[in-house]
Amino acid sequence: MPDTAYQRLLNRVRGNHLLGATRAVLDWDQQTMLPPGGVEFRARQLKQLAELSHQRGTAPELAELLSLCEDQAALLVDPTSDSATNLREIRRSYDRATRLPRELVAELAETQSLAQNTWAEARNRDDFESFRPWLEKMVKLMRDKAQCLAEPGQEEWDALADDFEPGVQASDLHRLFRDLQAELTPLLGDITNNGSPPARRFHQHPAPTDAQERWVRAVAESMGFDFSRGRLDRSTHPFCSGTHRGDVRLTTRFHDAFVVDALGSTMHEAGHGIYEQGLPAAHVGTPLGQATSLGIHESQSRLWENHVGRSEAFWTFCRPLLLKHLGAEFEVYSAAEMYSTANLVTPDFIRVEADEATYNLHVIVRFELELAMIRGELEVADLPGAWREAYRRYLGVEVPDDTRGCLQDVHWSCGLFGYFPTYTLGNIYAAQFFESAQAALPDLDDQVASGNFAALKHWLNAHIHESGSRFRAADLCERVTGRPADIAPLMRHLEGKLRPIYQL
Amino acid sequence: MPDTAYQRLLNRVRGNHLLGATRAVLDWDQQTMLPPGGVEFRARQLKQLAELSHQRGTAPELAELLSLCEDQAALLVDPTSDSATNLREIRRSYDRATRLPRELVAELAETQSLAQNTWAEARNRDDFESFRPWLEKMVKLMRDKAQCLAEPGQEEWDALADDFEPGVQASDLHRLFRDLQAELTPLLGDITNNGSPPARRFHQHPAPTDAQERWVRAVAESMGFDFSRGRLDRSTHPFCSGTHRGDVRLTTRFHDAFVVDALGSTMHEAGHGIYEQGLPAAHVGTPLGQATSLGIHESQSRLWENHVGRSEAFWTFCRPLLLKHLGAEFEVYSAAEMYSTANLVTPDFIRVEADEATYNLHVIVRFELELAMIRGELEVADLPGAWREAYRRYLGVEVPDDTRGCLQDVHWSCGLFGYFPTYTLGNIYAAQFFESAQAALPDLDDQVASGNFAALKHWLNAHIHESGSRFRAADLCERVTGRPADIAPLMRHLEGKLRPIYQL
Repeated sequence: MPDTAYQRLLNRVRGNHLLGATRAVLDWDQQTMLPPGGVEFRARQLKQLAELSHQRGTAPELAELLSLCEDQAALLVDPTSDSATNLREIRRSYDRATRLPRELVAELAETQSLAQNTWAEARNRDDFESFRPWLEKMVKLMRDKAQCLAEPGQEEWDALADDFEPGVQASDLHRLFRDLQAELTPLLGDITNNGSPPARRFHQHPAPTDAQERWVRAVAESMGFDFSRGRLDRSTHPFCSGTHRGDVRLTTRFHDAFVVDALGSTMHEAGHGIYEQGLPAAHVGTPLGQATSLGIHESQSRLWENHVGRSEAFWTFCRPLLLKHLGAEFEVYSAAEMYSTANLVTPDFIRVEADEATYNLHVIVRFELELAMIRGELEVADLPGAWREAYRRYLGVEVPDDTRGCLQDVHWSCGLFGYFPTYTLGNIYAAQFFESAQAALPDLDDQVASGNFAALKHWLNAHIHESGSRFRAADLCERVTGRPADIAPLMRHLEGKLRPIYQL
Repeated sequence: MPDTAYQRLLNRVRGNHLLGATRAVLDWDQQTMLPPGGVEFRARQLKQLAELSHQRGTAPELAELLSLCEDQAALLVDPTSDSATNLREIRRSYDRATRLPRELVAELAETQSLAQNTWAEARNRDDFESFRPWLEKMVKLMRDKAQCLAEPGQEEWDALADDFEPGVQASDLHRLFRDLQAELTPLLGDITNNGSPPARRFHQHPAPTDAQERWVRAVAESMGFDFSRGRLDRSTHPFCSGTHRGDVRLTTRFHDAFVVDALGSTMHEAGHGIYEQGLPAAHVGTPLGQATSLGIHESQSRLWENHVGRSEAFWTFCRPLLLKHLGAEFEVYSAAEMYSTANLVTPDFIRVEADEATYNLHVIVRFELELAMIRGELEVADLPGAWREAYRRYLGVEVPDDTRGCLQDVHWSCGLFGYFPTYTLGNIYAAQFFESAQAALPDLDDQVASGNFAALKHWLNAHIHESGSRFRAADLCERVTGRPADIAPLMRHLEGKLRPIYQL
């Protein structure tokens, strides 16, 4: 391979990616393995890595090579070519990184690591006050970051969200979410007021967590998650950490009863994991080899969790597997009962336990409150009250405490501002993608019922995973589904499933 | 704190230590968590970290600060002061690092990571040939490294061993090991030919590995290993990874039967761990805050494993704990039988399963073969034959295959040349230290019998752990025991215990 400027640029970028992957290993370790005594030292390690990454990502040599490449028309002539994609994304990262002072990067990294622990303790003790100064510091750092990143006239929140969903705008999200809410609210009202709810007893049936773990592991394996290139562990907040397509780590959690929760979170994270494992091998370490956005990432987790895992066909396949691992005492439940129980709709406090219909309302609450904090319209001290008020308004529920209120999510403690809306974007994209997959694979339902997920996985590999970051989320959606982001498929999916279950 | 050259130097050194600790996390992860698909990428990560560490460890700014400090007589006037210790060790590391070309450091890091995996596969398949080219490469790299490091007239092996046991010399070890062998061989002969061996049945009694794990965890806790600052996991080859006194990780392994093995390896690693957790908090990240040598480290693991864990008093304490976790079926064994079975002597092939009497002979075999490879007197291709021959000569056993022969240990695949003798040095120091502890704590035996290890742990903390690297191993030994390294206490310990057990 000739030692061109482009090759040299990619080599530098691969080095930066390596360092980022090291940071990801330390992050994963912190969330799954690190003893309490190691927390402060770990924060120092992460701070050092963040500084090193920032230093490398803003190095003058990188800028020079990038400019040299951008002067070569051949590299850019086709905007979806390998080279044009890589140069676009390298330019974007470089410009964003150079706008951030090194001290801010270091302080953010250290604060993220420490605040995460304070949050966990505050949540356990229902003690918002002990977390408040950390969240205030984080919001301040985030506003500083946004000010550095925002282009003239850009909404500051948008500049933060660009880390997760390049090009997304709060104003567009407002419109999309308002339309979605306008359709969800009557459906929810009908379900709550006029529906006949399915039996809950399957939800309450306990099973040993070790047995649950063997069961959900078998499901993830059936889906096509490759355990020779990944792991499944336990953590408080389930997540997927992909440092490399050969090392993709899922976590899940288990309750003594409520076995559907462990299943859902495992299928969810395995959906993320299958995306990571399916990214193009030839482009490891370059932007092209990475996921295009978190909204698209979330579409993959939601598609498996909801469109597959909460379908009638899936429970035909899953029931025998459940009986095998959790024991014959579950024989009293038919596949039909398992299916309808897995689709119970209950307006409640906890996002990660929410059903498909209310889930997006939880996201809308967070989006609005976060936007208000970044805009300086909401003080951190007023967050618990504003949270309670929003839950009354959107979900009609009375939040009993902060543990089940504004302390429930890890995100803000990690500095993930601009992140929450990608969950709902993911739900919207997932429904669109799944309709396209159904059109392309007419016997998909039968395949799912027999536990054969290979065709679906290959369709997702070919249409979504293998393109890496070649297309922006919005473009990818149009290319795969023929339409921009559209709430209609999601609403068709929800209406079509929930009305029969609730006999409406 | 004034921003003196010394403070600035320590800050740089702390940064290098942080990076080293990151590398240690990735190493631990590779040995306990990494899926096979991530191995090659992990090698790249470790190579990058090794290059970064080397770059920082040889930076001209470091050399300048170091020289500035060395010009300040006040910092060096007391050779055992904090500053003199740190400056001595920083100088030593700097000089050694600058003698190694960056390319060699990177190649070594990558080869270590990859060769370790090839070794594991070769060992599983008893296939020395597949590992041979990697070991040849490693020996070549080690000889290159030794040539870079050796001072004029220095034995090259000594230059490698200096990484683990500063100041140790092959010639001294030869003498010490010859004396030891001269006393071990007649004892072994007597045991094998004239002794009445204790019953083996306790060794063969199976127990579920989960129950074994709960049991050995309880023992480690009793010893004083602090689980809020550490972990215990499983790996093929037990080890202790200490990245920081607040994050010390032990691994052990379990057999279905042979429960004494899991106990021994856990107590061994917990002994290492208690040393790491006891290093001086005020000096984290500087040389003074680190262990002084691997021989001293090993003395701590051996002291707990052999002098405590294989004592009659210990089994008085341990039997009820064993019954609690492994079940009433173990009631058929008295504490006396457990004690004598834990001290069975059997010349055999596997070092890590060896008894106290034969263990040092395993080490002597490795020391001699390794020295011959580094000196160029033994070709890697001839290693399996030379290994068999040495086992015939020293242990009188016929090695059945390479898996139980020269492929049994991970060390050479990781580039740990100059390391093995520290095991026997550790045994020698352990016996000396334990005699001193017994003199200082006259009722130690009663304390051990009642599971009270606090006084012993505090004695070790105060006399050994808290001095960090202030004293070289040989000096520390003299300070604590009043004598240089001496095989007499080890032989007294072995003779005094094994002759009664074998009714000699």
